[in-house]
Amino acid sequence: MSFGHVAIIGLGLLGGSIGLAVAEHLPGVGTTGYDADPAVRTRAAERGLAQRICATAAEAVADADLVILCVPVGAMGEAAREMAAALKPGAVVSDVGSSKKTVARVLAEALPGHTIIPAHPVAGTEHSGPDAGFATLFHNRWCILTPVDGVTCADTERLSEFWALLGARVEVMSAQHHDLVLAVTSHIPHLIAYTIVGTASDLEEVTQGEVIKYSAGGFRDFTRIAASDPIMWRDIFLSNRDAVLEMLSRFSADLEELRGAIAAGDGQALFDAFTRTRAIRRSIIEMGQDDARPDFGRSDHNGG
Amino acid sequence: MSFGHVAIIGLGLLGGSIGLAVAEHLPGVGTTGYDADPAVRTRAAERGLAQRICATAAEAVADADLVILCVPVGAMGEAAREMAAALKPGAVVSDVGSSKKTVARVLAEALPGHTIIPAHPVAGTEHSGPDAGFATLFHNRWCILTPVDGVTCADTERLSEFWALLGARVEVMSAQHHDLVLAVTSHIPHLIAYTIVGTASDLEEVTQGEVIKYSAGGFRDFTRIAASDPIMWRDIFLSNRDAVLEMLSRFSADLEELRGAIAAGDGQALFDAFTRTRAIRRSIIEMGQDDARPDFGRSDHNGG
Repeated sequence: MSFGHVAIIGLGLLGGSIGLAVAEHLPGVGTTGYDADPAVRTRAAERGLAQRICATAAEAVADADLVILCVPVGAMGEAAREMAAALKPGAVVSDVGSSKKTVARVLAEALPGHTIIPAHPVAGTEHSGPDAGFATLFHNRWCILTPVDGVTCADTERLSEFWALLGARVEVMSAQHHDLVLAVTSHIPHLIAYTIVGTASDLEEVTQGEVIKYSAGGFRDFTRIAASDPIMWRDIFLSNRDAVLEMLSRFSADLEELRGAIAAGDGQALFDAFTRTRAIRRSIIEMGQDDARPDFGRSDHNGG
Repeated sequence: MSFGHVAIIGLGLLGGSIGLAVAEHLPGVGTTGYDADPAVRTRAAERGLAQRICATAAEAVADADLVILCVPVGAMGEAAREMAAALKPGAVVSDVGSSKKTVARVLAEALPGHTIIPAHPVAGTEHSGPDAGFATLFHNRWCILTPVDGVTCADTERLSEFWALLGARVEVMSAQHHDLVLAVTSHIPHLIAYTIVGTASDLEEVTQGEVIKYSAGGFRDFTRIAASDPIMWRDIFLSNRDAVLEMLSRFSADLEELRGAIAAGDGQALFDAFTRTRAIRRSIIEMGQDDARPDFGRSDHNGG
């Protein structure tokens, strides 16, 4: 491994998982961690999310040859400016944000002359904070790198190797393409989930108690996604606005088509639409991106 | 238990699970089963989904004091007419369909003078067919009864007891109210999931391979729901059209509001919307209706 010391800025689900994964998979690599919230720093020290938890970002990055920003997308600029003066020459600066075009621009502005390789490990759970991380979060998950212009292949290779050693599968693409792909595989699904859970909360004819009781019919899957961190998701929608709006307009047009089929009683159109969606599920399971067991292998007595 | 013999018409996920659950929880109760598909009957006999698999519906119901129709909602009328002449006087006829107003009307027309108590166990997985059922499917799940006018409390009580003995929690309400509740907790979530999976399949800028690779960002949860049985879901949307269209228009209005907030860069509106949806998730977990573990407790190496 060509990085001897990794600094993790932001010690929530992703930052904490990186720290724990490095400890498990790369025992020779040093880690320092920093979080703007003192309570998170205390908890991170208790859990050992990094070998040393620092009181400032500058202290955390001083010895690092890889710095990973694990803060909400909207906080990237400030986090980068805070550590800029303390960065070692030649250090690679990366992140884990869910949108990449905006992050690339913000980091380039804040850190002129530095090696910037934005990254997005497509992994996570609905939980957040310093207690949420675990060492295996990236196993068999994809991590997308979107190096900015001028970054050498050698540096991109080094970061690829790092993620591969944490168990991830690595892909390189442009930030623009990343943002379009993730709009459909992640951002629109989250927006839809937040919306339907909100719609259900507002009904007068159906009580919230009823919505909760009968959620096993499908709704409960949406509530898991809609329990994700609100600051993180606010920032994603603000920073990936164009791709999200583009994909949303296609989704809305498709939904309007199915609505029309229901209104017209067109059973054939509904059957055809509901049949072609099964193949994609099979492929996701074959690619190892989901659990094949019914209901994701939930326990029978779900959480009871 | 006041039913000595239960006939199950339709031996897919729900019918098969009822047969297995009766065998496990009510060993003194006799069961017969029938399915219109000979291949399903063969497999049902191999798995022991009922004590005796019959070649006709009439034969299956001849001795039954409880008959449960476990066929798609659109096939209820034909299934009821097929067995009408063979029904014992006083037998209770029920079902497991996901919409109830249409089913109540169709069964009342097909079986005049019989005791009809439509029912909906809110339980299931994305799998279907005679291999999908299991005895614990109804544990800690709600089952909603919607007795038609003229049914006695005593008969409703008997059916409640049956479902309680299979592990379910029972609620009684009107068919109209059921259809409204389930439109929001189940039917709209399925429609949305089918739509977004279809949208993702149609993109030109993003390949299907990319959609599959990066599905862990949220999309894969939707593909599970969109892998549900297409005939069953076609029939649900056709039979619960009014409530579905009503709830869909509210969802669309709410989605339009969030779209507007994204377009306007209104971070506060997004943050507020994303914050209030967390409470409902907590309640669902507290009520034992979902698994509290991150990602539903999926295995780390999901399905790999």
